[in-house]
Amino acid sequence: MHSASRRPSGRQPDQTRHITLTRDYTRHAEGSVLVTFGDTKVLCNASVEAGVPRWLRGKGQGWVTAEYGMLPRATHTRGGREAARGKQGGRTLEIQRLIGRSLRAAVNLKKLGEYTITVDCDVIQADGGTRTASITGGCVALIDAIRHLQRQKLIKGDPFKELVSSVSVGMFRGTPVVDLDYPEDSGAETDMNVVMTEGGGLIEVQGTAETAAFSRAELDAMLDLAEKAGAELFAHQREALGLRE
Amino acid sequence: MHSASRRPSGRQPDQTRHITLTRDYTRHAEGSVLVTFGDTKVLCNASVEAGVPRWLRGKGQGWVTAEYGMLPRATHTRGGREAARGKQGGRTLEIQRLIGRSLRAAVNLKKLGEYTITVDCDVIQADGGTRTASITGGCVALIDAIRHLQRQKLIKGDPFKELVSSVSVGMFRGTPVVDLDYPEDSGAETDMNVVMTEGGGLIEVQGTAETAAFSRAELDAMLDLAEKAGAELFAHQREALGLRE
Amino acid sequence: MHSASRRPSGRQPDQTRHITLTRDYTRHAEGSVLVTFGDTKVLCNASVEAGVPRWLRGKGQGWVTAEYGMLPRATHTRGGREAARGKQGGRTLEIQRLIGRSLRAAVNLKKLGEYTITVDCDVIQADGGTRTASITGGCVALIDAIRHLQRQKLIKGDPFKELVSSVSVGMFRGTPVVDLDYPEDSGAETDMNVVMTEGGGLIEVQGTAETAAFSRAELDAMLDLAEKAGAELFAHQREALGLRE
Amino acid sequence: MHSASRRPSGRQPDQTRHITLTRDYTRHAEGSVLVTFGDTKVLCNASVEAGVPRWLRGKGQGWVTAEYGMLPRATHTRGGREAARGKQGGRTLEIQRLIGRSLRAAVNLKKLGEYTITVDCDVIQADGGTRTASITGGCVALIDAIRHLQRQKLIKGDPFKELVSSVSVGMFRGTPVVDLDYPEDSGAETDMNVVMTEGGGLIEVQGTAETAAFSRAELDAMLDLAEKAGAELFAHQREALGLRE
Amino acid sequence: MHSASRRPSGRQPDQTRHITLTRDYTRHAEGSVLVTFGDTKVLCNASVEAGVPRWLRGKGQGWVTAEYGMLPRATHTRGGREAARGKQGGRTLEIQRLIGRSLRAAVNLKKLGEYTITVDCDVIQADGGTRTASITGGCVALIDAIRHLQRQKLIKGDPFKELVSSVSVGMFRGTPVVDLDYPEDSGAETDMNVVMTEGGGLIEVQGTAETAAFSRAELDAMLDLAEKAGAELFAHQREALGLRE
Amino acid sequence: MHSASRRPSGRQPDQTRHITLTRDYTRHAEGSVLVTFGDTKVLCNASVEAGVPRWLRGKGQGWVTAEYGMLPRATHTRGGREAARGKQGGRTLEIQRLIGRSLRAAVNLKKLGEYTITVDCDVIQADGGTRTASITGGCVALIDAIRHLQRQKLIKGDPFKELVSSVSVGMFRGTPVVDLDYPEDSGAETDMNVVMTEGGGLIEVQGTAETAAFSRAELDAMLDLAEKAGAELFAHQREALGLRE
Repeated sequence: MHSASRRPSGRQPDQTRHITLTRDYTRHAEGSVLVTFGDTKVLCNASVEAGVPRWLRGKGQGWVTAEYGMLPRATHTRGGREAARGKQGGRTLEIQRLIGRSLRAAVNLKKLGEYTITVDCDVIQADGGTRTASITGGCVALIDAIRHLQRQKLIKGDPFKELVSSVSVGMFRGTPVVDLDYPEDSGAETDMNVVMTEGGGLIEVQGTAETAAFSRAELDAMLDLAEKAGAELFAHQREALGLRE
Repeated sequence: MHSASRRPSGRQPDQTRHITLTRDYTRHAEGSVLVTFGDTKVLCNASVEAGVPRWLRGKGQGWVTAEYGMLPRATHTRGGREAARGKQGGRTLEIQRLIGRSLRAAVNLKKLGEYTITVDCDVIQADGGTRTASITGGCVALIDAIRHLQRQKLIKGDPFKELVSSVSVGMFRGTPVVDLDYPEDSGAETDMNVVMTEGGGLIEVQGTAETAAFSRAELDAMLDLAEKAGAELFAHQREALGLRE
Repeated sequence: MHSASRRPSGRQPDQTRHITLTRDYTRHAEGSVLVTFGDTKVLCNASVEAGVPRWLRGKGQGWVTAEYGMLPRATHTRGGREAARGKQGGRTLEIQRLIGRSLRAAVNLKKLGEYTITVDCDVIQADGGTRTASITGGCVALIDAIRHLQRQKLIKGDPFKELVSSVSVGMFRGTPVVDLDYPEDSGAETDMNVVMTEGGGLIEVQGTAETAAFSRAELDAMLDLAEKAGAELFAHQREALGLRE
Repeated sequence: MHSASRRPSGRQPDQTRHITLTRDYTRHAEGSVLVTFGDTKVLCNASVEAGVPRWLRGKGQGWVTAEYGMLPRATHTRGGREAARGKQGGRTLEIQRLIGRSLRAAVNLKKLGEYTITVDCDVIQADGGTRTASITGGCVALIDAIRHLQRQKLIKGDPFKELVSSVSVGMFRGTPVVDLDYPEDSGAETDMNVVMTEGGGLIEVQGTAETAAFSRAELDAMLDLAEKAGAELFAHQREALGLRE
Repeated sequence: MHSASRRPSGRQPDQTRHITLTRDYTRHAEGSVLVTFGDTKVLCNASVEAGVPRWLRGKGQGWVTAEYGMLPRATHTRGGREAARGKQGGRTLEIQRLIGRSLRAAVNLKKLGEYTITVDCDVIQADGGTRTASITGGCVALIDAIRHLQRQKLIKGDPFKELVSSVSVGMFRGTPVVDLDYPEDSGAETDMNVVMTEGGGLIEVQGTAETAAFSRAELDAMLDLAEKAGAELFAHQREALGLRE
Repeated sequence: MHSASRRPSGRQPDQTRHITLTRDYTRHAEGSVLVTFGDTKVLCNASVEAGVPRWLRGKGQGWVTAEYGMLPRATHTRGGREAARGKQGGRTLEIQRLIGRSLRAAVNLKKLGEYTITVDCDVIQADGGTRTASITGGCVALIDAIRHLQRQKLIKGDPFKELVSSVSVGMFRGTPVVDLDYPEDSGAETDMNVVMTEGGGLIEVQGTAETAAFSRAELDAMLDLAEKAGAELFAHQREALGLRE
């Protein structure tokens, strides 16, 4: 009761925002998913290209990578366009490296053959949690791209291993909360992004103390919230993809 | 009858695609319009910032500028991300300069005061005509941003002069046609972009022979088509903005 | 009488500046032409290189491209050196794309074989009309480079199709005028660059309203002036090249 | 017994490498520390500059930031020089952001006054764990720079809050291990960097599954190892700084 | 007799090429000189701008700097355009630093007041010795720019100290020679650039062994040749400037 | 007696600083030397890579090149990190070109086979003379890398020709002095870097007048000092390498 009143949105500590996954959002990409976590909206386009990066050639395996961008006015105030500034910032590079690593955990690269799947995550509107939404939606787009390769008979086996999703957790005004929106994100004591597999494994845990160090007990409480939210996210992904549980 | 069969889409030579203008598409920008010309979809976000570029300071006037970008998989095959390549290409710079010049024709910069309005045109899905859609949708977003300044009492007069819209015309298989989609655009003998004011004036005429030079008579026929389409575009803009004619 | 007095230079509305085309201006380039339009001086060097860009390889055709630059003090006040700034500006890229497209209209690329001709247009002194002078002089340099390939027996057929030239026209103080110099260019209501073939076709028409929209009638008047000037330009090119009419 | 034999170095799972912290390693920097974690050697130079970044001006507080670099032949094979490539890679930016955030946890920025302390961490020789060594050594250099400000009477209070150190942990061949060297780092199933305060708080926890997801139990086992190593690191820092416990 | 036959051009070892200095070559720059050393042609434009670089502000002195560029086809084969590559090469930077240092020796910066004179040296045609021609011609352009400041009554005293000129010398096929052209430059055992003041002082001596080390005796012989050529160069500069000896 | 008192360090005019050459300073590079000239400390790492730059391929010879960098706080005040600025400055490029040319004089590239040796010279602490220390130490690292190739039986002959070393000389308060430290370097009338071979030849002579032109007599006096110091440097190199004289 008390804790609910502490979240600006009025949500319960363990309550995620409204989550949607819309497939086939644009028509050119082999996988195209609009993911929304409340007011955060990210377009995840998975593109298949024959061939792999130079350092992987001839190894008989594929590659999955990600790129991340934010439209200049996805945020409260306009941010400069990275293309105009002539380089991607450190935050952008850090996020796209995280998305790429996370999505590779969903795939058996050996079974992918010499194809590269690039998942572009472009933030249309930002309200906190853009990287976790990108991973969750990007995984669905990635699977659609894999299904495309299979339908086209370009690969034989099934490179898809298991679903991967992600959610943020944090300590906000002394309480562990899940799926932080922008007002929470900018005021939290600790912010943590968790990437999980449907099988219960952890892929990434990135916790950062913003205004105060966090304890082992707080870490545990946040991971509990992430696990619980993970079950919801996997259900959303399954439903969007029409997979049976 | 014959000519209609010549267009891959089955459209009449003087028939534009289905056009929509959706205001308030995202929630942070002072003006936010999703414009669609058939399968071409562009998000136009107009952002207001206090101050003007250095070379305009102290002149008591405002500035309107535009930036243009294409999501990597807006196109049939994935194009590289300009932010990752470290620079905007010549085509991008050329288009955003065109959009900026065109939109400035809609505004009395003196009455804008020392504010800068930046109109970001980001192509979500491309099927030909992204620059003309950007100008047509960007004008609506620009007017919303101006209305925001007025509602906030930040400016007194009305800097809005008149509506500006744009459409492409071309010579396709010997026939003048309007609002070319991608299959037409890539096969046309001549491609021309026309920017018009509601008052009947021309702001930009950019005609380019792609595979064959064009004659004065063909130029005239194409301009006739553009004028006719302009009337439709202005009606769409008026309707979206709730302006009486 | 009246109109003449309107031009700062005292020229008649349909009067071009003094035009010269000096071949073999430098000694290394396969084609080297200094073109002057009054005080505007551009050095056009055409360089032949074996091979074509990657995306054209194996198609049995050649390529013609252009690069444009301005010496830092070609202008009234010193402009920064683009090499020192680390990138070519949007205006530069836009102009060199225009020059390249225009010059390709003079050539049958199939007959050029797998050679690339790069036409470097470097402005030694600027007084308006640098892009139209570049196209007009660049075409002569290009033909010299083609003749070089033929003399060296590197190609068999003749890739030269027809002469291409360019001139600016505009609305200046309410009157259509041709070949604007800098004072006119910076004060014109409308500025238009026209690229023409000797056969009477139009290659590019780029009209831009600077301070006021222009009408169809003004567009026609300007095109009439461009056509008339085109005849002069083709005569200059023929004379410089020693071609019979 | 078994587990010890699993580590290429023969170390026990909970055994860190030989750690040294040499102050005053170079003579110009206000704080200069060479830190070694076994064969990993990082020079941490803390520089004091008056003033703060633009976005902090006038807020009456200071700033602590970090930059990270690797000498081209710090590694087994020569890596390209980032200055020659013209940009810092994503890994570099990610690491220096981590170091900066971690070191700021050691400081009360309000008490620092309008000074910026930049901690340059340059890897002389790499053998795994360069970011954790950088944080551990950088904290000592930072404190020396703060002491310099105090000795010079440039600030009055003491901005130093508490010691911060860092160590890597991981799952290697099924066993949790601490302070991974390069052979372990490149073969580990999971790699995790932990940044701690002397008071027992966690500043950063960054765990990444490399070849297999990790469980909550494994996460706990790794954090236990990090805590134990933290005690050693704080003792090293205290000893180097001549601080009583 | 023998030695003459050794130079590809047939020149005597101590014979410079035909040298010309044409003032007022372009009309916008405050000083504009075309300098030719045989087939090497460099346009030197000196531009006056009020103000000095940030690090000199408030010191009551002026600044002289130089920029150097080569038109892409100034050379036998086309070199890439530095603006297109996005950076100036090491050779360019090295040369323009040399030119700047050399020209500053001709000027009393204190008497220049807070003005910056930038001397742009752009190579129209290259045949060896472009940096020495740039210094020799740039000095004349610099003096014209100083005279402009005096005529405009912008400065009171005379910042011009003494003439500076430069010539290359080298060991070519065992013989010391002066003013090397391209065939000599690319085949010389040693190449040396000497910058001198009219008063007999040395400003720069940059000798480089290309294929064989050089001895003190050879160094002396080369410097003797440079001194002799210096007298000629100063006479050319005096004549061009209309200065009495 | 008088002159000695003139040097801030109290050294005699012909007295070099304490010089050390420490081999095997880091463990990955094929040659790794820490060179110190007094308080100037440079780490010279020579790396062997199979293959040569594109323009040398198939010519049956090797290549030696150098890169130079300065740690941000090697100097009295912190200099920006070149990797962060996105380019190497002109001074850096000029120095690394000098080091590369100098070291190539020590090697018979034909006998090196198709290997590239890159000598990275990174300044740990700067006190004047970083480029001369880099050449002197880099030569020792280069020889170690050559010996590595021989030990590994990757090449048959001995590409090492002769020792190369370098020292700075200058005119300081009217007296010729050798091996200038930073206070001398920043106050000298003339600064000259001399690169020599053990056989008595000159490889580079780069003299620059800083505040006053220098005479031929002064040039000679400076070269005499450089020759004398060269003998010491070669003795240091021989001793470090265990070579008999």
